[in-house]
Amino acid sequence: MAVVDESGALRTHEDAAVAVVDGAVAAVGPTDAVTSEYDPAEADVALDARGKAVIPGFVDSHTHALFAGDRADEFAAKLRGKTYQEILAEGGGILRTVRAVREADPDALLANLLQQLDTMLSYGTTTVEVKSGYGLDTETELAMLGAVRRADDQHPVDVVATFMGAHAVPEGRDADDYVDEVVEEQLPAVAKQGVAEFCDVFCEEGVFSVEGSRRVLEAGREHGLTPKVHAEEFVHLGGARLAAEVGAASADHLLHATDEDAEALVDAGVVPVLLPGTAFSLGADYADPDPFLDRGAPVAVATDLNPNCYSQSMPFAVALACVGMGMTPAEALVGATRNGALAIDRDDGRGTLRQGTPGDLCVLDAPSHVHVPYNFGVNPVEAVLKDGRLVHGRTEVVHG
Amino acid sequence: MAVVDESGALRTHEDAAVAVVDGAVAAVGPTDAVTSEYDPAEADVALDARGKAVIPGFVDSHTHALFAGDRADEFAAKLRGKTYQEILAEGGGILRTVRAVREADPDALLANLLQQLDTMLSYGTTTVEVKSGYGLDTETELAMLGAVRRADDQHPVDVVATFMGAHAVPEGRDADDYVDEVVEEQLPAVAKQGVAEFCDVFCEEGVFSVEGSRRVLEAGREHGLTPKVHAEEFVHLGGARLAAEVGAASADHLLHATDEDAEALVDAGVVPVLLPGTAFSLGADYADPDPFLDRGAPVAVATDLNPNCYSQSMPFAVALACVGMGMTPAEALVGATRNGALAIDRDDGRGTLRQGTPGDLCVLDAPSHVHVPYNFGVNPVEAVLKDGRLVHGRTEVVHG
Ligand SMILES: [Zn+2]
Ligand SMILES: [Zn+2]
Repeated sequence: MAVVDESGALRTHEDAAVAVVDGAVAAVGPTDAVTSEYDPAEADVALDARGKAVIPGFVDSHTHALFAGDRADEFAAKLRGKTYQEILAEGGGILRTVRAVREADPDALLANLLQQLDTMLSYGTTTVEVKSGYGLDTETELAMLGAVRRADDQHPVDVVATFMGAHAVPEGRDADDYVDEVVEEQLPAVAKQGVAEFCDVFCEEGVFSVEGSRRVLEAGREHGLTPKVHAEEFVHLGGARLAAEVGAASADHLLHATDEDAEALVDAGVVPVLLPGTAFSLGADYADPDPFLDRGAPVAVATDLNPNCYSQSMPFAVALACVGMGMTPAEALVGATRNGALAIDRDDGRGTLRQGTPGDLCVLDAPSHVHVPYNFGVNPVEAVLKDGRLVHGRTEVVHG
Repeated sequence: MAVVDESGALRTHEDAAVAVVDGAVAAVGPTDAVTSEYDPAEADVALDARGKAVIPGFVDSHTHALFAGDRADEFAAKLRGKTYQEILAEGGGILRTVRAVREADPDALLANLLQQLDTMLSYGTTTVEVKSGYGLDTETELAMLGAVRRADDQHPVDVVATFMGAHAVPEGRDADDYVDEVVEEQLPAVAKQGVAEFCDVFCEEGVFSVEGSRRVLEAGREHGLTPKVHAEEFVHLGGARLAAEVGAASADHLLHATDEDAEALVDAGVVPVLLPGTAFSLGADYADPDPFLDRGAPVAVATDLNPNCYSQSMPFAVALACVGMGMTPAEALVGATRNGALAIDRDDGRGTLRQGTPGDLCVLDAPSHVHVPYNFGVNPVEAVLKDGRLVHGRTEVVHG
């Protein structure tokens, strides 16, 4: 059993068991000790995980999992040499997803998100953050956040909502003018409905400036939304410093962050969230985790699931964190569990496995947590418990 | 439906159906035409694949899927900066797997392989090549090939056996001396039992020279085994030329192949087999498919499943072929189906989908074959038919 403790250290226990009572971990420790207190024969559900690793459920702390349509054709076109600029010029890219989301009805949006959550759950995710940001107008942003709330109500996976009206500048609009709309119209409406916990912004050259981003985040803060920042993804613009200054919960991407940025984030207690799937799907360089790890920062690893980085799998994000970014399996696993929870301000101990924490855990079809990245490109998760309930179990292969 | 035709072109058909009778494809075409001749209501199995893509079953043409133990700890050590040379010096690497295989009993070897085949099947593989080469002595090489044969008998996946006594030089042995053993002792024993169809060799600096490799392959040919070559993986040594000269079925890896090598392979009708998972897991550069694609070669894509490249997933190999090597989704898919079949001399049309070919096919949980690489790191395969029988169907997520 791989246990992540309160300090973020990963410890493995051989011959261990875990008991969950009323949705929370009641005991973790040597099998004899746990089973003498909690008799498996009297449990509602008892899983025999001999020879298998048990780990905390994954916390995917950065996704755009709610969208309509997909962009498979753009993926194919990019492989034939088409540039992102050419795709944009033809009406493709993010604004195409915005059109599709605006045209989708609320039930279709919900159905899409529930399907993504099913897949995520089957790969071990028990808590996920989902951003709006494909609406870019008040009505559609609210529709997205409404779908996120309904999905959280209906699906076993816990869904945490982030408002991201400042995800892109809508077609034909001026960025400053659009920031006015986000601040004066979208944010108050979102706050009034109480449908988001975080406010995120894409602080990037050609998208939102540091000053525009600051306006959005400070307005969000006034409405009770905690800031998050898409920072330093394509160029070094100052988003990481901004995240530190506004006390963001996280700064995400960080491919072009400097040592000074890392220092500022660590000093301000901002969680660095790294998204290796994005680099993988774009064929780009990976972020360097070392400036953050060296300073003891709780580096989180997430999928960035979106139509341009289409992977729901946290195990694969862990594999990329190791193979692409050089993190150790323990660092990557802690990044995908406990540190992910920190990036979304969950201080109930989720992403760890110790007495009192939520009973969110995965049984792996593998003898150790190292197999998550080692046996890459396949699903190592055999069963998932959410709040102690068995919410996913993998089928047996049918031999005909 | 994505159909690979005889020439290796991928064509997609909308609103199409396929009928399989007595294990072979009886009809592929417009749904109305197929179902008027073959009534789904009278079929033993009928699958409704509306909105889903149907593709040929994957043919994984290069694996070392039969082994004992694993090397997860070495994976972790490499991420902490340990070199392969240091791992070898500590008794790790391939010779550690050789020790584990020599110590395993035949039933354990079989059980290991059956488990790998279960996973491969669940990711859509319907035919797989498996190499010996972790025995490096006559007895253990025969034990491996015996397990391969039993697995082929017992498991729905077709398993094609390759003898690879010349996979590594055993501890403390001289390479030339060991080649004598392979040629004079191992090959005759393998041929006598009739348990292998191909003979492969690791032609590489520090392993087997071109001349040593040639001796093995020519002796194999005399015993009726078709040559294959691990060629130009770490350095340019001449393995590709050797493959062309001996008329090998395939030359595999080819990271350091030259344009002249590509020309020679194409002229000799040798299938180039590219293994992007190996580069991924080693963090190395990928092979360049263009010298082969530009010459019209049937480039195959395979997993190279082994303890050092631990992935059973052909969909992930396809994703890497696209993202890592720049192949189009169509090229990668044809490489993972029809061209894989060519690499193992299967001329019964497997890997394509047309009248008369084996009824090996996958129903994807996705609307197009492009989603195989586009939606990376997850399993796109919902159901698998082998010779027309439903041999794998994915579970539904349990909502608790
Ligand atoms: Zn994002
Ligand atoms: Zn190999």
